[in-house]
Amino acid sequence: MKIENGKAQGVKIAYIGGGSRGWAWGLMSDLASCDDMNGEVYLYDIDNEASKANEIIGNKFNDAEGATSKWNYKAVETIKEALTGANFVVISILPGTFDEMESDVHTPEKYGIYQSVGDTSGPGGIVRAMRTIPMFEEIAKNIEKYSPDAWVINYTNPMTLCVKALYKTFPKIKAFGCCHEVFGTQGLLCWMVEEFLGEKATKKDIKVNPVSVNHFTWLTSASYHGIDLFPYYEKYCEKYSDGLPMTDNNWMNNHFASQHKVKFDLFRKYGYIAAAGDRHLAEFCPGKWYLESPERVHEMKFGLTPVSWRKQDLKNRLERSRKLLSGEEEVKINNTGEEGVTQMRALLGLCDLVTNVNIPNEGQIPNLPLGAVVETNAVFRSDSVRPVMAGPIPNAIYPLVSRICTEQEAVSDAIANRDLEAIFNAFASDPLVTCSLADARKLFDEMVENTKKYLTDYNI
Amino acid sequence: MKIENGKAQGVKIAYIGGGSRGWAWGLMSDLASCDDMNGEVYLYDIDNEASKANEIIGNKFNDAEGATSKWNYKAVETIKEALTGANFVVISILPGTFDEMESDVHTPEKYGIYQSVGDTSGPGGIVRAMRTIPMFEEIAKNIEKYSPDAWVINYTNPMTLCVKALYKTFPKIKAFGCCHEVFGTQGLLCWMVEEFLGEKATKKDIKVNPVSVNHFTWLTSASYHGIDLFPYYEKYCEKYSDGLPMTDNNWMNNHFASQHKVKFDLFRKYGYIAAAGDRHLAEFCPGKWYLESPERVHEMKFGLTPVSWRKQDLKNRLERSRKLLSGEEEVKINNTGEEGVTQMRALLGLCDLVTNVNIPNEGQIPNLPLGAVVETNAVFRSDSVRPVMAGPIPNAIYPLVSRICTEQEAVSDAIANRDLEAIFNAFASDPLVTCSLADARKLFDEMVENTKKYLTDYNI
Amino acid sequence: MKIENGKAQGVKIAYIGGGSRGWAWGLMSDLASCDDMNGEVYLYDIDNEASKANEIIGNKFNDAEGATSKWNYKAVETIKEALTGANFVVISILPGTFDEMESDVHTPEKYGIYQSVGDTSGPGGIVRAMRTIPMFEEIAKNIEKYSPDAWVINYTNPMTLCVKALYKTFPKIKAFGCCHEVFGTQGLLCWMVEEFLGEKATKKDIKVNPVSVNHFTWLTSASYHGIDLFPYYEKYCEKYSDGLPMTDNNWMNNHFASQHKVKFDLFRKYGYIAAAGDRHLAEFCPGKWYLESPERVHEMKFGLTPVSWRKQDLKNRLERSRKLLSGEEEVKINNTGEEGVTQMRALLGLCDLVTNVNIPNEGQIPNLPLGAVVETNAVFRSDSVRPVMAGPIPNAIYPLVSRICTEQEAVSDAIANRDLEAIFNAFASDPLVTCSLADARKLFDEMVENTKKYLTDYNI
Amino acid sequence: MKIENGKAQGVKIAYIGGGSRGWAWGLMSDLASCDDMNGEVYLYDIDNEASKANEIIGNKFNDAEGATSKWNYKAVETIKEALTGANFVVISILPGTFDEMESDVHTPEKYGIYQSVGDTSGPGGIVRAMRTIPMFEEIAKNIEKYSPDAWVINYTNPMTLCVKALYKTFPKIKAFGCCHEVFGTQGLLCWMVEEFLGEKATKKDIKVNPVSVNHFTWLTSASYHGIDLFPYYEKYCEKYSDGLPMTDNNWMNNHFASQHKVKFDLFRKYGYIAAAGDRHLAEFCPGKWYLESPERVHEMKFGLTPVSWRKQDLKNRLERSRKLLSGEEEVKINNTGEEGVTQMRALLGLCDLVTNVNIPNEGQIPNLPLGAVVETNAVFRSDSVRPVMAGPIPNAIYPLVSRICTEQEAVSDAIANRDLEAIFNAFASDPLVTCSLADARKLFDEMVENTKKYLTDYNI
Repeated sequence: MKIENGKAQGVKIAYIGGGSRGWAWGLMSDLASCDDMNGEVYLYDIDNEASKANEIIGNKFNDAEGATSKWNYKAVETIKEALTGANFVVISILPGTFDEMESDVHTPEKYGIYQSVGDTSGPGGIVRAMRTIPMFEEIAKNIEKYSPDAWVINYTNPMTLCVKALYKTFPKIKAFGCCHEVFGTQGLLCWMVEEFLGEKATKKDIKVNPVSVNHFTWLTSASYHGIDLFPYYEKYCEKYSDGLPMTDNNWMNNHFASQHKVKFDLFRKYGYIAAAGDRHLAEFCPGKWYLESPERVHEMKFGLTPVSWRKQDLKNRLERSRKLLSGEEEVKINNTGEEGVTQMRALLGLCDLVTNVNIPNEGQIPNLPLGAVVETNAVFRSDSVRPVMAGPIPNAIYPLVSRICTEQEAVSDAIANRDLEAIFNAFASDPLVTCSLADARKLFDEMVENTKKYLTDYNI
Repeated sequence: MKIENGKAQGVKIAYIGGGSRGWAWGLMSDLASCDDMNGEVYLYDIDNEASKANEIIGNKFNDAEGATSKWNYKAVETIKEALTGANFVVISILPGTFDEMESDVHTPEKYGIYQSVGDTSGPGGIVRAMRTIPMFEEIAKNIEKYSPDAWVINYTNPMTLCVKALYKTFPKIKAFGCCHEVFGTQGLLCWMVEEFLGEKATKKDIKVNPVSVNHFTWLTSASYHGIDLFPYYEKYCEKYSDGLPMTDNNWMNNHFASQHKVKFDLFRKYGYIAAAGDRHLAEFCPGKWYLESPERVHEMKFGLTPVSWRKQDLKNRLERSRKLLSGEEEVKINNTGEEGVTQMRALLGLCDLVTNVNIPNEGQIPNLPLGAVVETNAVFRSDSVRPVMAGPIPNAIYPLVSRICTEQEAVSDAIANRDLEAIFNAFASDPLVTCSLADARKLFDEMVENTKKYLTDYNI
Repeated sequence: MKIENGKAQGVKIAYIGGGSRGWAWGLMSDLASCDDMNGEVYLYDIDNEASKANEIIGNKFNDAEGATSKWNYKAVETIKEALTGANFVVISILPGTFDEMESDVHTPEKYGIYQSVGDTSGPGGIVRAMRTIPMFEEIAKNIEKYSPDAWVINYTNPMTLCVKALYKTFPKIKAFGCCHEVFGTQGLLCWMVEEFLGEKATKKDIKVNPVSVNHFTWLTSASYHGIDLFPYYEKYCEKYSDGLPMTDNNWMNNHFASQHKVKFDLFRKYGYIAAAGDRHLAEFCPGKWYLESPERVHEMKFGLTPVSWRKQDLKNRLERSRKLLSGEEEVKINNTGEEGVTQMRALLGLCDLVTNVNIPNEGQIPNLPLGAVVETNAVFRSDSVRPVMAGPIPNAIYPLVSRICTEQEAVSDAIANRDLEAIFNAFASDPLVTCSLADARKLFDEMVENTKKYLTDYNI
Repeated sequence: MKIENGKAQGVKIAYIGGGSRGWAWGLMSDLASCDDMNGEVYLYDIDNEASKANEIIGNKFNDAEGATSKWNYKAVETIKEALTGANFVVISILPGTFDEMESDVHTPEKYGIYQSVGDTSGPGGIVRAMRTIPMFEEIAKNIEKYSPDAWVINYTNPMTLCVKALYKTFPKIKAFGCCHEVFGTQGLLCWMVEEFLGEKATKKDIKVNPVSVNHFTWLTSASYHGIDLFPYYEKYCEKYSDGLPMTDNNWMNNHFASQHKVKFDLFRKYGYIAAAGDRHLAEFCPGKWYLESPERVHEMKFGLTPVSWRKQDLKNRLERSRKLLSGEEEVKINNTGEEGVTQMRALLGLCDLVTNVNIPNEGQIPNLPLGAVVETNAVFRSDSVRPVMAGPIPNAIYPLVSRICTEQEAVSDAIANRDLEAIFNAFASDPLVTCSLADARKLFDEMVENTKKYLTDYNI
């Protein structure tokens, strides 16, 4: 890789999980329209066929309308080939299949435990972590061996635990986790700015100070062109206390959408802006608050995301893959809004960037444990990601936030030790586990059983 | 006050809550048998009759068999008289009456929430704190005015929040909280030493390192004459996993007793010794673990302490007061095992003492927030209480412990601000509040209503 | 003040020291060419005539060629008028006159102590602080009273102690110190980039991570377009170990210039880039290293700045003021490179900015004391300055840096208490005070005597 | 080893440097009179003859008058034999010979640098550390291999750097450094108590709170039977500002004595009690303060300890060894006042002890770096040494203390890396190095040359 005339030539990206149907194409599009970088993308996936398909699709982007840079896509059969010499490693994998995810999300329903996402914390998140962390330990060992100087961007959930596993395995790794939930809240604030101030703001105009842990991120300040948005948001939450009206794209037709009623309720309770989708936020509050029953969820106007939907969606994406491959559908360049490519550019020294990331706490949040993975802003500059001092978690939300943060510290240790009892202890005290201790045990055993194909080095 | 020939002459103790029937007599007994201190005890109580009775009873101790020092007891009508010139201030009050406590403990049962004590955290503890903290703010202001250099020993619950309120109101106060729960666990370890090692140990022989917050204290080490007790305790917990057999004094006849089954279960889960009574420990775990129902409590072999019992007990103590006053019963000197008097002696420079106390965290537990009131060992020496570095809360129990610690930080702020919504937010996310958000609201409102006589400066 | 269409209308700037001849004109020029802000500048100075002159000069800038915004300049007689309603407060004052400064810088020469600047630390800096800090306490009290929400930008030396005094007096002040020395080093690195890489870089292209205290700042990283500059700087220091050749503008004709020989020597010693002028750097090293004698200074190719020169320079500037006032010379708009105006724009939400500032340590340098004023990067965004985690001071330079940092903490306390003995203790252990304790005492007394007109509230 | 009936049977002590003439005999005496421990002492020394002599002398103590316990002394030829199975490791070695020490102490005099001890910091301390630290690294590696669970007590200087080297090499080591200087100051305070209060106090009656680094320790509080000693000490320092009169045992006849004039001067300057011998204290202050010249030392009434004296003293001790061996002189039991044996008893669980030790900072001094070896009180209990929170270094003495602390951090790194340039940088900025940079270089080179026999793994 060389920087010449302000352009980075010959960048090598290793993409772990490179057989993805969907997210990969967005990255390809973003890379194609980035005019100051070019190079190669090595696609590695345990589904080698999928990587090969994406090699073909990726290379088509070079000729798409609006393409301003060339990237050579190459499917490889070993992680070693992918990593060797890489400048960046992108990790975006599905740990296990949707069958395991189905158990993660839905088995707890037998005990009256409803999860809207089930991939971060709660019963689903913890069991998902049990199969994911060993994979991340493996990846980190390979990075240490083959590309110790590369910057590693993780997109996989459970975000916090994945990033923690990378650092635990290879402490000198240069890794961070990237999540778009805060951007979504910036989007919501844009609507509010339009409604109250009559101006068309973009997400970048909304300056925020996120503090917390991934998917349960809170903003302690937000402004637009120097205007403090908190007084406006207070009015907004009052006005739409029963949820933001939505026409076409509403939460009843879309398992990912919500009417932000949980978010507004949390602001009215605590005075800080919860900055993730309602589906995520609900999972970190006591189980009876927003997820007590499907009726309660309906009342709060957000959706439970059933895995059956994900399975159907995958079929659609496989079909789209087929079409892109055959040329039946043409590849198109759209800006996805994901910050990944901009982050790479900043790390190469091509621009400065202040954005939110998930990295170990070195004091940016003084009242969360050092070393715990937290989400705050950071300054991206050439070869460095330096966290911005975000300040302490406000006392009002401290019990909720420290609860999830310390649970993840305990889960991280317990899984690193493959200690089933310790994992169960964390599981049984998660906010969503509202059943009795005896039932918690039965549930845990059943969920572990359902995913045991991926738990080969546990003593089960 | 003067130290002469190794004796402290003319010590002045201000006793807030000095009309107590019961605990006061123990203190009187301990003082009477302390041969290197003498002086005066000023009794202040909102029930002035009760103080006057204790003045008479207290002075009787000077002539009791075994008395080795003289103390002049004096009931006073103002806190100013009590505090002015005091070397020590003892605070042991009942905030409100048992009627309010009855509501604290039993109202939640309507919503399936059972509390074994109800005075520390949980619904009962939080509402109790609502009426107690304003009293402590008042006391702290008076101490600042009348006896800013006195050492202040608090015995009142909720311990953590009371001590926090003292420091919040008068940051330079020299205060600490004293609780005997750890001593009880040292007693249990003595039984174990006798059973396994065949030696008669005393509590002082059991060296422990407590870390945590009051009533949910954990020991990260325990030894007897240099012998690590953890391996023995592991066997002990296994042997008595169904509870320590008890003959006369068991939990079914005694609302304060237990068979330590919760304690043993927690050790088997986490590998650290929970060092408080089972009734307390249960209240900090998720509500469905040990307090799901009276049946579950029965199965775990500890008692719920009904306030009706406390009311009856008070009658007995009033009767005893009458007898002591009339001379029908003679005052007797018994060592209570409370450390209060020894702590005073150490603070006067008469001895060294290492014991556990509740004081603000200045780093003795590095992974709990600075300023939060925590319980660890401290070195008592002349005019100083210096915490011993206790080390971090182990990750396995970190979620449980940080949860209660941060909840108390939030409650402390919320009550200081008389902010009902903020108090409710903490209430509604307490581990024991297992009902829906709507029910939590109803419960909170009812409990507040029941104690509102004591909430005059809240906006109710 | 209002933000409309991305422009800040009606910004009010209070300029303390607004009678300045020189620096004020640069600020006027920068403001005039800033097209997204306009408003008023209130000039306050103890020399009211000077403010009035600057009012006239300032208003001329509105009509200068290239002016893109209008600013209404107004000389006021009270600090209250200046501050009331201000959005920004700029402080740039000369504490005392050049007569006092002459004593600060030159009196120590009697004892073989040479100072190249004498305004930051060392004998000159400490005595200057004695008269400056009381002024800053006064200013801070006025800001608390009249403009508590204003952002305060300090340019006055001793920078660290001035900023500390502001925070000590009014802890909620929103203040920071701005110094251009790091920018100078970025300039030097631009020359190096041109020499070694053949590219024309600007200061903004040089990304650095400064850690330390003002005027003794060190860079732990530096890059240009993603290229690590440390290996190049190593070669550069070797190549120019005897100093960077200079033709016209060299250190022998210019008391502010140097050939960077001290800077290069420090890099060769420690492996980190010292990022201030050699004249400053020399003053923080042991006195015998670079300032042992005028001969040693000559050998190291930097200049001692005699106050006689400053006095002559002032005459020139007074003459220039006269000409600008009379119209004999026309005002001209030149970009000064000072970041002040950009910082204001960022604080108003008009842009994002990452730059170095002097603010209290909240953990951005984990191994310097919390609360000490340190210099690191910070993110400027609307109404917020958040430090970037700079990381610890490397162990190799830790003795030198912590020495000055802790000396300033001690001086800050000693002056706040007006405690002459305590000030002397810090003075006598400063690295530059190489004489005996008895001589140090004589020197201190003489220097204090020379400035006593400004020490009215000390007990002298 | 077994604890039975409150006695420790079969304790194994490994004594590294066990051939000592002098200090060893004190330890033997202390062990012989300790009635609740017995066992074996393995003597290891590079001078095997010396160990063998001490084996014979040691065993004689079993029959001395007043002996209450039996210890089996055994000289061994390998460190492995000494360490294997040890409960305690005592390290007390002379790194190199008095010839090297002669250079350490006296070579700097050529450049006007006088050292009163020369074994802790300053030129002598740093060069001594260069040959000592590699030895300690070797010892630590052996402890890790042969006795990882043993408690390690170091007596060797430079104390701080030796303890640091042990932890750096084997982070899980259970080591601490023991120094008697604070006890000496407690003795001085006893004299004061007798003079002012007319009471015979013992050192144990004087309760102190030491904060700082070894040999430059400061007391932030001192009391006797609850009486604050600071007001008395203030008078004492005033009364004896010209030094404490001494009759027979004064500083002019005794190279170790002083009249405490430095100590008193430091109190009058800073208001805290410097708690080490004047000879040590002087070495941490700027070089011109107390060690400017032999005349200045004379004026301050303490002694420079010439190595010629140490050489003569060694001859006396060798002669005494011969006599003890031959029986010409009988071994005698005297309590040395060293705390080593009491510390061992406390670690075995036989008693509690609060005393000062040198261990890595885990927050006991919040404003010194974590991990730096500091001296504070600690609680010794069975198998644990837990530091007592000592509080921050007061700002007034912070520059002096942090200077030495951070210098030692830098020296520790530089020697661990065998990096001569880095060592020289620390050397050249030490407070005692008052010469020019060029002379400092010459001095360093000469001193290194003189000790190079012991610097085999440096690149010299």
